[in-house]
Amino acid sequence: MRTDKTEVTNKNAGKASGNNNSYNINKQSIGKQTVKFTNPPAIVSRACIVGQMEGEGPLSSFYDQIEPDPTFGMNSWEEGESEMVRRAIQTAISKSGLSKDDIRYILGGDLLGQLIGTTFGVKGFDIPLFGLYGACSTCGEGLSLAAMLVAAGYADNALAVTSSHYGSAEKQFRFPLEYGNQRPLSATWTVTGSGAFVVSSTTDINIMSGYPKISAVTTGKIVDYGVVDNMNMGAIMAPAAADVIYQCLEDLSMKPDDFDKIITGDLGKVGSEILIKLLRDNNVEIGDKHMDCGVEIFDCEKQDTHSGGSGCGCCAVTLAGYILHNVENGTWKKILFVPTGALLSTVSYNEGQTIPGIAHALIIEA
Amino acid sequence: MRTDKTEVTNKNAGKASGNNNSYNINKQSIGKQTVKFTNPPAIVSRACIVGQMEGEGPLSSFYDQIEPDPTFGMNSWEEGESEMVRRAIQTAISKSGLSKDDIRYILGGDLLGQLIGTTFGVKGFDIPLFGLYGACSTCGEGLSLAAMLVAAGYADNALAVTSSHYGSAEKQFRFPLEYGNQRPLSATWTVTGSGAFVVSSTTDINIMSGYPKISAVTTGKIVDYGVVDNMNMGAIMAPAAADVIYQCLEDLSMKPDDFDKIITGDLGKVGSEILIKLLRDNNVEIGDKHMDCGVEIFDCEKQDTHSGGSGCGCCAVTLAGYILHNVENGTWKKILFVPTGALLSTVSYNEGQTIPGIAHALIIEA
Repeated sequence: MRTDKTEVTNKNAGKASGNNNSYNINKQSIGKQTVKFTNPPAIVSRACIVGQMEGEGPLSSFYDQIEPDPTFGMNSWEEGESEMVRRAIQTAISKSGLSKDDIRYILGGDLLGQLIGTTFGVKGFDIPLFGLYGACSTCGEGLSLAAMLVAAGYADNALAVTSSHYGSAEKQFRFPLEYGNQRPLSATWTVTGSGAFVVSSTTDINIMSGYPKISAVTTGKIVDYGVVDNMNMGAIMAPAAADVIYQCLEDLSMKPDDFDKIITGDLGKVGSEILIKLLRDNNVEIGDKHMDCGVEIFDCEKQDTHSGGSGCGCCAVTLAGYILHNVENGTWKKILFVPTGALLSTVSYNEGQTIPGIAHALIIEA
Repeated sequence: MRTDKTEVTNKNAGKASGNNNSYNINKQSIGKQTVKFTNPPAIVSRACIVGQMEGEGPLSSFYDQIEPDPTFGMNSWEEGESEMVRRAIQTAISKSGLSKDDIRYILGGDLLGQLIGTTFGVKGFDIPLFGLYGACSTCGEGLSLAAMLVAAGYADNALAVTSSHYGSAEKQFRFPLEYGNQRPLSATWTVTGSGAFVVSSTTDINIMSGYPKISAVTTGKIVDYGVVDNMNMGAIMAPAAADVIYQCLEDLSMKPDDFDKIITGDLGKVGSEILIKLLRDNNVEIGDKHMDCGVEIFDCEKQDTHSGGSGCGCCAVTLAGYILHNVENGTWKKILFVPTGALLSTVSYNEGQTIPGIAHALIIEA
């Protein structure tokens, strides 16, 4: 482990005494991949909009809106996904008590080529946009960057948003729904849902307490175990999740017992087993702390979703609903939230390439 | 214009006197969309790898590598694009004198669905990745975020990389090359090229001088004038470029004469005319300062590239080569660099949606 922290402390000390013009750099990088915030930003508002099937799942009571129309009143799945994004952003801003002019940045992305779910969902808000792609890890990427920009003082408030839609995703990545193909038990079910979060500075005394805070982020690398099965996304993402969880614990000198829950994005049942085993092989035991949003979001037996839910929306709506509810009411005081992505493209896949994975980790505290 | 700056100064003053535990937030946001860095990060290294046609253009002497093989020794255009990304990163790191372990983040993206150009290009480097999508504005998005993360102290060094490839882009967005379709004069030619930049903190005395610095960034919003012609990308992007240039000048109380050049990404000839007219209608005259990378990169008459070059790689390789050469040798002391993106997707386009634009602006100083 690199000892950046010490090195930096010395560097700052020298600066402070030697040069009055130098500004006091807010150095918070720790270890190889982690940033621990001196002044953690808060998630002051959250919204989740889902489709009918998600609304029939076990977490139904935690959603802001359940929409029975798969096109959300629009003309296509893609336009429906954008409408879902628009509603999530609108709801999150409304619940925050802020106006859209108070939001300095949107950090958003989705699974579709050129991020059309996000583009047409955010365009009416007239807010500066950083478009992101990290497959189903995008929720972690967006929240990480939102927290980093807010903690650095570039914004008082930033909004992170992600979405996925079963119809638009299956059409793009696998088969047209009309084809009615068979799905293996390792396959996951893309969640129709969008989650949005307003991340705010806590230097303003009015919002210093009561909200969940993002206290650290560990940014993931691409991890490629050479898997080429697009019906087994859990196996693709599990090594990336293991890698970023291991590094987060290492960078912060923490252990799984320091958390009430370690929550992955959409590994599903198959991927979750692989994750636990991979970490166990590296002497990290998370078995009793681990939960996966993909496993929780559907009743996989009754709803016939096989290995579980997936998609950018899966962990985003689970965080915006069930998870942050439990953090806010004190059930969980500190969690490690790890959205996981499989960087699947039909073009590279059909050209015989592997499907690499990536995952980002955030520590969220009550 | 909001007066965030004053408000923030007061807030910090109150904090500093009232609470010893509060940390000195590095508040640099100005106006609606701009961040001006107290301690501007430097571009300490830059690399540009291009294809044969770019190598035959007027800027050929500024490129690091000109590769005659359109697949860069690989099996497909897409794999070739990734190889180009890999070489750009490798070259930029080598030229910086750093090792890959010194690079804390890669901020990268390209035009292809799910960013496969970037994914397979960066995966061997084992560096934490933020995947970005802003169409051809991605170079501006990546450099903006790299500068923000470095200036905030989250990283000593971050690398921004973008790419585009004529073959893979035409295949994805328009027609297979084998089809040999006619192109209208408003059409641009996707540049085969990848540009990579190492952005470093200037708090270390050793790298404080001699390198171009990113002193401010203005983050763009989606601007949609309702254009639906995918053969006229310049007209799509010009309003977004006008919007972000206008806002940058407004936020910083600057005027075009404060810059030696105002350089847009890939508006081409058609889009450049629209940009100049749009700003003139708003009492901003940039005619004598304006330059467009898309116009410069090819000899449009001789090379039959119609309105000019385009693609993520167009402004990235022009910046990494010709532009920063002129900043480093003192020809241009201060420039406004404005990569422009058309958020084109064949899915939304074929469903009858418009093609919105986005642009991001950076001030780069000698």
